[in-house]
Parts: sequence; structure tokens; C-alpha cells
Amino acid sequence: MTIIDLLKNNIIPESVKIVAKQENLSVEYIKNNILNGTVVIPLNNKKKLNRNFKVTGIGKGLRTKINANIGTSSDKIDIENELEKLRIAIKYGADTVMDLSTGGNLKKIREKIIKNSNVPVGTVPIYQTVCEVLRKSKNIKYITPNHIFDVIQQHCEDGVDFITVHCGVNKKTTEIFKKYKRICGIVSRGGAFLTEWILVNNKENPLYENFDKLLNIVKKYDVTLSLGDGLRPGSILDANDRLQIQELQNLSELVKEARKNNVQVIVEGPGHMPINTIEKHVKLEKKITRGAPFYLLGPLVTDIAAGYDHITSAIGASIAAGAGADFICYVTPAEHIKLPDVEDVKLGVIASRIAAHVGDIVKNVSGSIQWDKEISIARNGLDWEKQAKLSIDEENFLKQRKKSFPKNKQVCSMCGKYCAMREINSVLSNIK
Amino acid sequence: MTIIDLLKNNIIPESVKIVAKQENLSVEYIKNNILNGTVVIPLNNKKKLNRNFKVTGIGKGLRTKINANIGTSSDKIDIENELEKLRIAIKYGADTVMDLSTGGNLKKIREKIIKNSNVPVGTVPIYQTVCEVLRKSKNIKYITPNHIFDVIQQHCEDGVDFITVHCGVNKKTTEIFKKYKRICGIVSRGGAFLTEWILVNNKENPLYENFDKLLNIVKKYDVTLSLGDGLRPGSILDANDRLQIQELQNLSELVKEARKNNVQVIVEGPGHMPINTIEKHVKLEKKITRGAPFYLLGPLVTDIAAGYDHITSAIGASIAAGAGADFICYVTPAEHIKLPDVEDVKLGVIASRIAAHVGDIVKNVSGSIQWDKEISIARNGLDWEKQAKLSIDEENFLKQRKKSFPKNKQVCSMCGKYCAMREINSVLSNIK
Repeated sequence: MTIIDLLKNNIIPESVKIVAKQENLSVEYIKNNILNGTVVIPLNNKKKLNRNFKVTGIGKGLRTKINANIGTSSDKIDIENELEKLRIAIKYGADTVMDLSTGGNLKKIREKIIKNSNVPVGTVPIYQTVCEVLRKSKNIKYITPNHIFDVIQQHCEDGVDFITVHCGVNKKTTEIFKKYKRICGIVSRGGAFLTEWILVNNKENPLYENFDKLLNIVKKYDVTLSLGDGLRPGSILDANDRLQIQELQNLSELVKEARKNNVQVIVEGPGHMPINTIEKHVKLEKKITRGAPFYLLGPLVTDIAAGYDHITSAIGASIAAGAGADFICYVTPAEHIKLPDVEDVKLGVIASRIAAHVGDIVKNVSGSIQWDKEISIARNGLDWEKQAKLSIDEENFLKQRKKSFPKNKQVCSMCGKYCAMREINSVLSNIK
Repeated sequence: MTIIDLLKNNIIPESVKIVAKQENLSVEYIKNNILNGTVVIPLNNKKKLNRNFKVTGIGKGLRTKINANIGTSSDKIDIENELEKLRIAIKYGADTVMDLSTGGNLKKIREKIIKNSNVPVGTVPIYQTVCEVLRKSKNIKYITPNHIFDVIQQHCEDGVDFITVHCGVNKKTTEIFKKYKRICGIVSRGGAFLTEWILVNNKENPLYENFDKLLNIVKKYDVTLSLGDGLRPGSILDANDRLQIQELQNLSELVKEARKNNVQVIVEGPGHMPINTIEKHVKLEKKITRGAPFYLLGPLVTDIAAGYDHITSAIGASIAAGAGADFICYVTPAEHIKLPDVEDVKLGVIASRIAAHVGDIVKNVSGSIQWDKEISIARNGLDWEKQAKLSIDEENFLKQRKKSFPKNKQVCSMCGKYCAMREINSVLSNIK
């Protein structure tokens, strides 16, 4: 049974009550929005809830959530390091993590990550299928539909809470791709491999053609489908082109199917996109999917800043979240250059949390601007301890302050004794 | 004579020709926009132009420029360190620098910075006035109007190209300030000291009351006036309040006066501001000042991220620049915590440059999206050398890549052999 099945039978699962409480919203609100498909709770029904596990709701009216991608690559296989990334991602505020491993024993890594994660875990099963096929036969061509579905089944059985499935890449998008030139072709691995498979086999994407089969598998586990954006733009010059929009249209059809089958579903989007098109794109997704939660990579708002793409994506994600995006996939400073290390993971999570919060202020999410108010009152009161405690990264705040500690501990070393806040507060207290 | 005087006499100064060439615009365009007050070229007419000096135009249709603040504080006085910050700021792309020193021998520091800077230098003369008075009498009250104007004269004589003058802080704003509570009072040092002076002396701000006197001084040197935002919000909860808007109104009157006197003038703005109010605010400034170049600090789009305020301000500055802001004052990760060090300066400059470029893409500034196109073509072509060269920080790109060098140098260690770009390009070349 899925959450939707239960709610339709007037049973309120514990997870719904937890999310309502977290978000300061009524159980009724969460229930109605899960039923109309604008809120999801990614949670494999094999999981036993315990006090440590952080259930997360994603969607309309809820705090914007962020995801951190971790996982090995064929170049870097170090499970302990990935577990450290997991720890750091959660410590700094990731609401979910995705294991995108493509190197080493993928099942073992996935099991370890699921075991050690107290937040929902997502995966991209097609990576494993591709890795297995390439290790054996060296050619994508030999992937079979059954292999794709078997791996998905395995991930669900292992306890994954949500999976990215690139169901919107199909013959139609592949025809468009062949005809219209892009600057950056296809930058999603899932999108590239499936497009290749369609091209070399001249067959339809099994995830699109046999979407019902996919639904039957995930239904059993209540695994949430995250419909992948295999054709997201890899350059701002490719943004909003026919390819991206056609895929979104394909996904919107599949959203309907999933809902009919009581399967929770979200839609993935963006990549690289100029800031003046972000709001429109988010609104378009919301319109044609009737409000399916929107899960965005970035958007990265320029292509020129590799090494600083946690910043370019925080810019895009702020605007997107403000416009209604519900779930932000972090981008780290390592993007476009290398596999992120632990420090990259930290910086990526913090930049995304900033963006999510900035969006929440616009969306007027319960409690969000209150955080700004509290820290600003502490700042105006020159209460450094409280400022640090309320900062997005207390440790770093204290470390930086210590680096250049002021002569007078009431102020900071930037303005020193010419602190505007201290000055004006003391004048006001004198004249009042 | 000012540039405006010269242009009105149909003399085209060298600086106008340089800016036209830099911006890929006609001399006529630059001339007309300087004459109607929508473009300025901050350049003290005592300066001898040489090939090393980078003349900079700021305003409508031009590339968005960025400024880096450097300078000592009463807590940290190390001239050599400030000169290193100057070097780094220019190296990473600051178009101007401001010397905001408040510690040590201010005249000597200013002279050294001007001597070593090949970009325009700005200052805030009121800091020196305040420092001198407090060192002597320990009370702001004893600042005299003559002292304020004498210091301004001295800065002009020293060769400063633009000065921040908080002329919009007046009795009216002070009355509003007393009546309406703000979360973060006044966070501009100039704004705080002048408001205090008005309060304790019950007199009008000399910079507002005797604005003609100020014009007469700067006119002689063609020093550009940057009308300071002494009442900018220090919390997003204070944004767009009566105080901020009243100051902007005051400044718009003074813009008119400056133009009548052939003095180049720009307007300063923002501080902390939620993203959904930035565009409106920029458009308001443009409307009531009839297009005076807008110089923004940030805006910082949330109050909760001290330690990462180069990111919060890059978010705001991107939106502001896209909406028409012309000149961005950087914010470093040290903001709200300490005086920035050299690394902070670097990160602040890079974050601001990203924001300025993101805005330029929206404003369709000549050549801006071309940069994204070129780097994306290099990325798609797996040309790592060219990608590095075209990146906003080539050194860092190469350093990061080396940190986790891929087994196959054609790709990167993130996707390793499962590189989407390589895969799809090779498939396309096979089927075509």
C-alpha cells in the first residue's frame, strides 16, 4: 500500500502526522495535498520509522527541501569517504541524499549509505544497469528492458525512498535531438545513455513505453518516482529549447499516470538557465503537471564560473524556490571539474540551504522570516553568541570571528570602535 | 572643467573614447548618456591618463561594474596588507576600489592606494572627519561643516575619482527614524554619524543643506559624487521602509542639482532586501532619478548567513543587475564578522563578478553571453585547457582539477568513464 492508498482509505500514516507537525500545518492540509499530488513524502514502506529518522515532506506550502548527491565514481572509489560526505551533508542540513555511485560494488555501497542515513535516500538505478552492462559487454546496446526493471526492483527492495527515472527521454525527443543542434548536447548521464540506447536499437525507452511496469514495481514499496530531466540544458544557451520543453511535456503525461495509480511522483528540472527565464519555467511546470513538486538542479545561471558553481546555482535556486520550486538539488564548487570532496559537499549544502531559505521568505513559509528577525535582533543588540548560534554555520562564524578578534569584544574588527550600530543605539538611548 | 562641461562644448575627452571602445558602443552613445546623466566616468581631472590606467564607465547599456572595498580599521592597521588586497581585488577583476580606512594615518594610506591603483579609487571622506574629531574631542557633536568640506577638498586634491557623501540623511529622515522602529536601526557608518550629528546639534546635515558648496568643490576636479545610502536596511525586515524610501527621494532631488551643475552623480542603494522586492526597488530608483547610475551594496537577500554573505549578496546583485543596476559593491564572506583578509577580498570580487555577468546576460550587454557560449563549446568539446582559460578563475579551475585528476584526461573525475558528453558525442558522430 502507498501513502495515497492509505489516505484514500482514511488511514493517516504516522509520516503524514510527522510532516504536518514539522511544517506547522494541519494533518488535513498534508493529506489533501498528497491526494491531489502537490505534496509527497518519499519513504520506502519497508522502512521502520524510528526517532532518529527524519521524515521529509516535499511540495506546496512546505519548507523548500534540499538534496545532496554523494557516491563513488569510476575514478574514485572510497566508501568511507562517501560515508563521511553523508555525515557532513546531513550535519549541514541536507533533507535527503542521493547515492549516485558508479564505481565499486554498487549494491554494497548503497546498503551502507541507506544504513547510515537518517534522511531519505534516493538513487538513479539506470547507473547500475549501465555499469553492469558495460563491465560485461562494453556496449550500451545490450541493455535489456528486463535488466532495467530488475535493478529498479533491487533498489526498492534495498530500501531506497525515491528513484530518478528518465522516463521522458523517448523516440520523439531523440528525433528532436538529432535535428536541432545544441551547444552542450546532453549532460545528464541517464539522458545520454537512454538516448544512445534508443538511437542504436531504434526502440522506444522501456521506462516510457512500459511505464505501467515501473508503476507496479514502485507501488509495492511506495517508492516515490522522481521523473528525471535527462535533457536538461548544459549551457544557458540551450535553456528552454524544444528538447527541454518536449521532455517536460512527456513527463507531465506520466505524472497523470502515476497519480491514477496512487504512486507519489515529482518532476525534475533545470540545469543551466538565465535568471530571467527561471520563474516562467517553474510556473510552466506547475501548470502542465497540475502542481507536481518540482525538483531542480541549480539552475546554474551562467556557464563561466566552474569552481564557484555552488554560487551560480544558489542564485538560480533562490529565484526558482521563490517562484514555487519545492526541492533543490545542491551543486558543489566541484561541479564541471571533479568528484566533490567532503569540503565541497559542505559548501554545496550550505549554498543550497541559503537558496532554499531565500525562496521560503518569498513563499512565506511558516517560520522562515522569523529566523532573519531573530538573528537581526541579536545583531542589533551586539549579541555575538546569539548571532553565532543563529547563523547557518555557527562553527564557521566563530572561527572567522576568532581569526580577527576585535579589541573591544562588543563590536567586530571591520568597523572597530566606529561601529554604526553601537553608535546609533547609544545615541538613541541618550535622547529617549 | 568636468567631462560634462567639455562635452557641452563639443570637446570629446580621451576617457569617453576609451569607454566607447571598451564597451563596443559609439562615442556618440557614451556622450549622450553622460549628458543626460545615465552614464558617468569617475576620473579625477588631476589624473594623467597612461596606458596602465583602466578608465571605467558606469551606467546604462554598459557592462555592470564592480567595486571592492579595502582599508584599515581601528582594529587592524597594516598598510602593506591593504596594498595586497588592492592587488588581489584588481587581479580578480574589480573595476574600482574604495579606500574605507579608519585606522592609522589616513592621508598616507589614501595616497599609497591611489598611487598603486590602476583603477578608479573612491573614498568616504566623512570617515576621516569623524576619526579626526573623535581622536581629539571624543564627541561627534563637535564636527563643524567646514571640517567636513575641508576633508572633501583634501580627498579631491589627493586624486580620488569618486566620493561617497551621505547627503540624503537629513532632519526629515531623522524625524522618521525617531518615530518608526527598525529591527536594525542604522548600519551605515556615515548614516549613523550624520544622524547622530543632526540629533545632538539639532541642525541640518551640512552635506544636504550646503549641497551647492559640495558641488563647487568636486566640480573643480570632476570628482563623481556617489550619493550614499546612509539609511540602507540592515535587515530584510527593514527593507523598503519609509526611511529608505525618504532618503532615496532626498537623493533624487540632489541628483537634479548635480546635473544642473555639470557634476557627474550616481546613487547608492540597498543593503539587506528580500529577492521579490529588488527589481521594483531598482526600477523606482531609475524612475525618480531619471536614470542615474545605481550603485548597490549587495543586496543581501537574507540575514542568516554571515560567513557566506558573498553568496547572499551575489544572489541579490544578480537580480539587481538584471533589473538595471549599474555598479555592484562587493560583499565578502567576512561581512558582519570581521575586517576582510586577502582571501575574503578574492572571494568577494569573484562572487560579485559572477553576479554582474549574470545581470549582463539579462541586460544583453555586448559580448556577455558570448563568454558563456565559448566556454560551453569548449566544455562540450572536452577541451579542458580552454575551459580553464575561459573560467572566471583559471588558477582555481586548474588547482581543483589537479586535486582529483581523472584516470582518462579526456573527462573529469565526477563521471569518470561514464561522461555523458563524451558518450553522446561519440554516438552522434557514429550515426551521422
